[in-house]
Amino acid sequence: MQFSTSFIPEIRFGDNIHLMIGKAAKELEARRAAIVIDGFLAQSGLAESIVKDLEREGIRARIFSDFAGEPKLAHLHAALETAMGCDLVIGIGGGSALDIAKIVACCAASGRDPMHYALAANPLPKNPLNRILVPTTAGTGSETSATNIFSGLEGKKLWIWGAETKADLVLLDPSLTVTLPANLTAWCGLDAFVHAFEAATNRNTHRGAQLYAHEALRLITGALETAVKEPGNLEARGKVLLGSCYAGVAIDNCGTAIAHNISHALAGLAPVQHGLATALGFEATIGWLVEADTADLDGAARACGVDRAGDLPAFVSDLMDRCGVVRALPKTFGAFSAADLGREMKAPENLPMRRSTIRDVTDGDIDHFAARMMALVKGQ
Amino acid sequence: MQFSTSFIPEIRFGDNIHLMIGKAAKELEARRAAIVIDGFLAQSGLAESIVKDLEREGIRARIFSDFAGEPKLAHLHAALETAMGCDLVIGIGGGSALDIAKIVACCAASGRDPMHYALAANPLPKNPLNRILVPTTAGTGSETSATNIFSGLEGKKLWIWGAETKADLVLLDPSLTVTLPANLTAWCGLDAFVHAFEAATNRNTHRGAQLYAHEALRLITGALETAVKEPGNLEARGKVLLGSCYAGVAIDNCGTAIAHNISHALAGLAPVQHGLATALGFEATIGWLVEADTADLDGAARACGVDRAGDLPAFVSDLMDRCGVVRALPKTFGAFSAADLGREMKAPENLPMRRSTIRDVTDGDIDHFAARMMALVKGQ
Repeated sequence: MQFSTSFIPEIRFGDNIHLMIGKAAKELEARRAAIVIDGFLAQSGLAESIVKDLEREGIRARIFSDFAGEPKLAHLHAALETAMGCDLVIGIGGGSALDIAKIVACCAASGRDPMHYALAANPLPKNPLNRILVPTTAGTGSETSATNIFSGLEGKKLWIWGAETKADLVLLDPSLTVTLPANLTAWCGLDAFVHAFEAATNRNTHRGAQLYAHEALRLITGALETAVKEPGNLEARGKVLLGSCYAGVAIDNCGTAIAHNISHALAGLAPVQHGLATALGFEATIGWLVEADTADLDGAARACGVDRAGDLPAFVSDLMDRCGVVRALPKTFGAFSAADLGREMKAPENLPMRRSTIRDVTDGDIDHFAARMMALVKGQ
Repeated sequence: MQFSTSFIPEIRFGDNIHLMIGKAAKELEARRAAIVIDGFLAQSGLAESIVKDLEREGIRARIFSDFAGEPKLAHLHAALETAMGCDLVIGIGGGSALDIAKIVACCAASGRDPMHYALAANPLPKNPLNRILVPTTAGTGSETSATNIFSGLEGKKLWIWGAETKADLVLLDPSLTVTLPANLTAWCGLDAFVHAFEAATNRNTHRGAQLYAHEALRLITGALETAVKEPGNLEARGKVLLGSCYAGVAIDNCGTAIAHNISHALAGLAPVQHGLATALGFEATIGWLVEADTADLDGAARACGVDRAGDLPAFVSDLMDRCGVVRALPKTFGAFSAADLGREMKAPENLPMRRSTIRDVTDGDIDHFAARMMALVKGQ
């Protein structure tokens, strides 16, 4: 047994714990903070109440919420302008808000463009601005990972990776997730479920990461259906949020596998909600995957409350049914063929997820999975 | 549910992983390192090989190993002299070596005396020297905790507490623990077992810390007997070492309880190995404790592989039997009475552990426990 687990930031969990952002910023000795927050959360009055909270602690704050969808380089540039001169960045929202906050905390410290760090071109600065991350979608786990995704000038998907981008403090507040619509709750929760499952069973998995992955599987499979069906159920919301955070720890150490190869390949063709794409990719491959018949697969199954890995395909389909997931890809995918998706799945940028899968993924497997996925295009 | 878990350093686990100390020091951009290492490990040639390893990376290193038993202020002063001008402190050994390394990393950065920080008199410096911690006794969990114990001028037990003392990097190397004698393996392992059990069941416990505490209970109860009986069994050694590390995380968040009240009270009377004192204190109180009949006690029992909390007293006594623990306190305790021990157990410095215990600990309970403990004095 040999493994390593990267550092895990301080995590504070509780209903309305976002009310302590000002106090937490003060503990970090902040004087000037940039808040990167999802637009709809900013409009709800949350951004203003946080600014007031920070002001009570003598901390001036600016808000950046002018972004939508996956972060683009232009969003990063605009956020960077907001963050210049600050000593703290607070990210509040889904994975995009958190990724922008994490990248900007590095770039504002060094004065460098994000492209300077893209694809590990240069080492990140050792002393980025402090980072408080407050996830509100319970899915990406970006609050506990070192990976940050954005698209460059030609729309090419890029990443910035490094422990320097990880949070100083994570605040998990279930009350911030209750307004998430049922479909997004399901999709994001299933994304986190697949994070945990793939990290617990792929070629890179180890006992250290499985501690988090299995807890995430227990939490999410036990609470996701309730969180979807009873949006105001804070206990269920909290379990999914905590599970998503632990799943982030798991992928931070072990990465993902074939289902994420598929969802990233789909995103290379046309816009699709990442959690939905991942869940559909997982359902299309789990029957094939469990034929690997490993102890790790059985361990993950038990964490899901299932006796053995062979029962997982039925369990996963049932979980998706219970969460009301419609098995369909957006109509825009009608412009593409299974061969197009297969090509994306075989592309170099998606190779790590293909290779980390516990079974060898042959070109024939990819063609088969691509055909299954494209059969899910609406109206086909 | 509301809780927080403090940050957890990067952990690298594996046989002979101590061979990468030089590389790890380089990653931390060290130029000059102080090595705080147990005397017998230093004499084994380990210190010299690490110095050579560091020199290969261009890092000059000095060794401090002139200490024994629990750290005294004089040890800290001497270690501080070694560490002045360094940018990295490497602690290798039992809890004392690690605690000295952690304290010295702060004091060397600020130029202040340890007494400046004792009992939280002043805030710790924000930028201590970097710290790599390599535990070799699988017991204290100091490598993942913010607590550091030493005794002041009059022999009074003092502590320095703060996240600033926590490790930047923890190296867990089972091969460094194989020379630990059977009795110390048992005592230290049981100390870690009690850390995990108390953190998982006391008044401060929460789901966040229980993740680590339960994993520690699983690891330690599953492997300690083998580690004691087969000193060279690296798998068992590794499980106890990892369990001890996770138990350190658990107490870093939730602290301990009555068994540690007893062991600290005993230490206030006369020298006794801490793990042995804790194990004896645990066995003397577990029957009383489980009458509290809480869900947390049942949860901890299940992590030990025991159906319900009521079966724990027999399980614990059997575990201690299997690990060859002789139920006896050193003869020096013959100079003291149960009333003396009871007075120590009621002392203000041991009050937090009394108060955190899930059952109210009455003065009558203390007198009863003190009598049970003093009946364990050799020759009585």
